[in-house]
Amino acid sequence: MSWIYFVDIFGTGIFAISGVMTAIQKKFDLVGSLIIGFVTAIGGGTLRDILLGKTPVGWLNDRNYFIVILVGYLIAYLFREQALKYKKSMFLFDTIGIGLFTILGIQTALQYGLNIEYCLILGVVSACFGGVIRDVLTNEVPLIFRREIYATACFAGGAVYLILESLSTFENINISLSIVVVILIRYFSVKRGWSLNFSV
Amino acid sequence: MSWIYFVDIFGTGIFAISGVMTAIQKKFDLVGSLIIGFVTAIGGGTLRDILLGKTPVGWLNDRNYFIVILVGYLIAYLFREQALKYKKSMFLFDTIGIGLFTILGIQTALQYGLNIEYCLILGVVSACFGGVIRDVLTNEVPLIFRREIYATACFAGGAVYLILESLSTFENINISLSIVVVILIRYFSVKRGWSLNFSV
Amino acid sequence: MSWIYFVDIFGTGIFAISGVMTAIQKKFDLVGSLIIGFVTAIGGGTLRDILLGKTPVGWLNDRNYFIVILVGYLIAYLFREQALKYKKSMFLFDTIGIGLFTILGIQTALQYGLNIEYCLILGVVSACFGGVIRDVLTNEVPLIFRREIYATACFAGGAVYLILESLSTFENINISLSIVVVILIRYFSVKRGWSLNFSV
Repeated sequence: MSWIYFVDIFGTGIFAISGVMTAIQKKFDLVGSLIIGFVTAIGGGTLRDILLGKTPVGWLNDRNYFIVILVGYLIAYLFREQALKYKKSMFLFDTIGIGLFTILGIQTALQYGLNIEYCLILGVVSACFGGVIRDVLTNEVPLIFRREIYATACFAGGAVYLILESLSTFENINISLSIVVVILIRYFSVKRGWSLNFSV
Repeated sequence: MSWIYFVDIFGTGIFAISGVMTAIQKKFDLVGSLIIGFVTAIGGGTLRDILLGKTPVGWLNDRNYFIVILVGYLIAYLFREQALKYKKSMFLFDTIGIGLFTILGIQTALQYGLNIEYCLILGVVSACFGGVIRDVLTNEVPLIFRREIYATACFAGGAVYLILESLSTFENINISLSIVVVILIRYFSVKRGWSLNFSV
Repeated sequence: MSWIYFVDIFGTGIFAISGVMTAIQKKFDLVGSLIIGFVTAIGGGTLRDILLGKTPVGWLNDRNYFIVILVGYLIAYLFREQALKYKKSMFLFDTIGIGLFTILGIQTALQYGLNIEYCLILGVVSACFGGVIRDVLTNEVPLIFRREIYATACFAGGAVYLILESLSTFENINISLSIVVVILIRYFSVKRGWSLNFSV
């Protein structure tokens, strides 16, 4: 089991936790919040696979996604009251997750021989659209359209990855550096209140 | 024409009626409510087929789905004022429909050699996501996340079906018993106000 | 480069502009409005391709879609204050766009040997569901369900195209006439306030 697979599974669990937390706040029932957790965790990669025609979509062939989502679900319910305390750790893991998901999405798209701009787009889709689907299902305007430089961090990290890949063959280093870019952009954007709003 | 196909087509019509009714209440125009009826009727099976890569998705190859949805649409408009009177029959047919759709979804997934937990999930998706898409398109928080043990009944019926299949080869009996489980759970949950809400 | 391809690309750009305009009004950030513009432009054709299993979905294989959407995005931001002045031209281009998208959708579906009623449906999906997805993502009840004879015009234009195709082999004329039907219906429906609302 490579570290990439491990981070992928771990990130899936973190995404599930964040989905379940949202559902709990919305007073969804036990089954509803499980569904929301599931969709948040696998939504982005699923949309990427569907657009590429990579079916049955990835998670359907790997029981570990199911297990980690279930674990995330249980953790979210058990620790829902302490959630605020762990907010910073959650934020860090979530950001590592979107960074890695961006790279994994790009790698998958590259296998289909797509132009790099579309690979980049599919990387961002993989990382961000689980949250978009979560927000649509809970009847919210998707968060990434308004409040954070969430998608932007993924675009930047993905672009760095594509550049590094054309320069070097140290895959693990390329991936790690790209994820660090995502983390830094997101960290500073939240800390300093950066945004890309445009007064109209 | 097997009884299963007949119930499938019939359930599709019932789902169409419920979709059109929702659209009428929302004051959608004639075309809008036709679209909502259509999406409600075929949405769940469509999502299942897309996730599996079973394309063109099922209904595209069978004119009868089109016809029964159109019939459901006309019935919904013609009898919209008497709808309340038939609410109990509608409820029964709808429940038989979701029961059968769950089983059909599981059977389709089994053909793709998926692990049983994913077969169960795709069964529930087949039965419930038509309604989820209907609610998303009409800008509501999906009903199944909040008010009823709708998805739970499908999970239970699907699990019973998978257990019976491992024990016996009487397909028709297995299916019928599983649908009865869905009906009973849903009936008693509505009658006695069961819910899985969790005070947080 | 045939005129059809040119109108397709041009229509995609117009759809992108209308999506970005909506996002600007909703105060989405720069990345959010790019995503909405993108989804509005390619959403309908993407859904059609997914339903058919035509993957990787069309635009992923053609860089020109990416370029024209980016150009539309820039135009929308640069001219957002003059937008009202160009509203009539936008309306015309948009209507030509949905007319052509309907025909292109039908042609794609015909290649899969589907029954004509499903070809017609996929034509309307191609033309209208980009807007539907835009409205869902911006948390609005989709416009086409309420206010305009948008989908109806596409149904009518598509039906005219299917009839003409069975009568004549002058493809270009058939397409042009069908688009004119879409334009006329939409023009008069807006001008005279036609609607298909049904008092219940």
